[in-house]
Amino acid sequence: MYLKYLGETKAIRLIMKNIQRRCSEIRLGIGDDACLLKDGTILTTDSFLEGVHFDLKYFDYQTLGERIACATLSDIAAMAGKPILILAALYLPKEMTTKELLSLYQGIENICRRYNCEIGGGDIVSSKRLGITLSALGKTDKPVLRSGARPKDRVFVTGYLGLAETGRKTMNIKSGYRNSRARHLRPLPRIKEAWQLRTRLNSLIDTSDGLATDVNHLARESGVKIKIFWDKLPIHPETIKLCRKRHWAIERFVLSSGEDFELLFTTQKEMPKTIQGLKISEIGICEKGRGVFLIKEGGKEYPCPPIGYDHLWSRSISF
Amino acid sequence: MYLKYLGETKAIRLIMKNIQRRCSEIRLGIGDDACLLKDGTILTTDSFLEGVHFDLKYFDYQTLGERIACATLSDIAAMAGKPILILAALYLPKEMTTKELLSLYQGIENICRRYNCEIGGGDIVSSKRLGITLSALGKTDKPVLRSGARPKDRVFVTGYLGLAETGRKTMNIKSGYRNSRARHLRPLPRIKEAWQLRTRLNSLIDTSDGLATDVNHLARESGVKIKIFWDKLPIHPETIKLCRKRHWAIERFVLSSGEDFELLFTTQKEMPKTIQGLKISEIGICEKGRGVFLIKEGGKEYPCPPIGYDHLWSRSISF
Repeated sequence: MYLKYLGETKAIRLIMKNIQRRCSEIRLGIGDDACLLKDGTILTTDSFLEGVHFDLKYFDYQTLGERIACATLSDIAAMAGKPILILAALYLPKEMTTKELLSLYQGIENICRRYNCEIGGGDIVSSKRLGITLSALGKTDKPVLRSGARPKDRVFVTGYLGLAETGRKTMNIKSGYRNSRARHLRPLPRIKEAWQLRTRLNSLIDTSDGLATDVNHLARESGVKIKIFWDKLPIHPETIKLCRKRHWAIERFVLSSGEDFELLFTTQKEMPKTIQGLKISEIGICEKGRGVFLIKEGGKEYPCPPIGYDHLWSRSISF
Repeated sequence: MYLKYLGETKAIRLIMKNIQRRCSEIRLGIGDDACLLKDGTILTTDSFLEGVHFDLKYFDYQTLGERIACATLSDIAAMAGKPILILAALYLPKEMTTKELLSLYQGIENICRRYNCEIGGGDIVSSKRLGITLSALGKTDKPVLRSGARPKDRVFVTGYLGLAETGRKTMNIKSGYRNSRARHLRPLPRIKEAWQLRTRLNSLIDTSDGLATDVNHLARESGVKIKIFWDKLPIHPETIKLCRKRHWAIERFVLSSGEDFELLFTTQKEMPKTIQGLKISEIGICEKGRGVFLIKEGGKEYPCPPIGYDHLWSRSISF
């Protein structure tokens, strides 16, 4: 069967069925945000392809470097780790200039400087289209996993849901949508926030695939039921404005939009309203049971399946 | 300036000039075989692109998976490490079939099984041409670096020089060249051999860029002069046969052919003639001074510059 007809879940399931766990140093292998060793080392890899993940119409090379470094480091934040190094494997078109290459690296370097990690090496291949695979290594003394949510945990999210996608959809609009576009172009990973909160959290994931999908990951891998309160979701005025203007169903937009790279976590401990200036919203509760449900006016429960972007072949699958 | 006019060395030098070292956990950063942390973690990344690094005429997908996993793990062997995990970032054509994808993974998995490591995750992107970036993580308790050679060290190499390239050049010939083709298709990394020898070695590198280039790396980074004895180089009869048949200068062929992925190392300790059945040849000596020289009949010294394949844009640059 051609891959394009297979579907994301099945492709990953098939691959995972054929891979054996055999290494005693590894705590969490294939299938999570990142690979976790028993000594607290976190390793992740992410690919970005021109025309698929980014459009050079809207990105200069430095911003592109910043963007992809942010997205990759977010996988380290998602396990409450501190990044140490990034390796950059580049597929570069021959007609790219030296200046463009250096700008791309400068962007990655800018984000490394911000998070006190460094570019530890790389690999360059000549290609027709620009492609970049970043691998990042981090460390943590207290990994927080997707599988740690417990009944009675409250569910929290940082920042805004759907903000980055609002930015992506408005890149061709000259004015307004400043916050959304900033989040799309330079989605600073929540490294410091996750590190500061790590001892208080039971479970953690970053919102890369859209809230619905990400909450379903937490619920399934923790073996709990999660209720999400629709009227508590943090939605930015720019997202509301865009959905109204385009006559889009805001519920679907907010639940399915990915790449916000915010922290989604559960805990029974007290949470502040903000951390390092970043808004924290309480959006749901964990209970005994299975599945994810959206609670709307009057307390009615609606099933909330993982309706995030189906990556298959349109964008990418990470596993 | 367009990258294609820049040249490998300058491209890397420019990139490295713009990257800052800032992370105290890193012992060896950008510029070596792999990145080395102070805790003995080794991290490396390698890319392989259809039409550049391999030709699907000569590789089925499983053999391809084996080939690229071998090449990547060789960077771990080059620091005397044990591999723990591989992450596979795939750029896959839509018309690839599920069976082909699984065969590719099976190949990587076969090599992981052999070296007791595992596939720890990955990423899939849809692309026009097949591209694969593998990142590998390993550990060592006694890293052996390129920079450790000392005057009076003797220089050794495992296996044969130019064997893999002999294989690559004879892929379209139906018979003969069995050993060469095996080395090209499945260049088993010298993980176990390097691990066993590690406490006895002063410096180590794998022969990925061709002997001339690799010896120059050792000499430059250790600050020594290295003399290589031409008549001691291990050259396989199949290589001699091919060079004769095609009227190629065997000296240039042997000195410049890469991807043998053998161990090249220096030591003052005694060395056996074989290790785990693999031939070890003494091929040179380190002295005070600079540069690499080839010693031919009568003891005459000829300068031996890094004439290995200049990767720039024809294949790839790893740094």
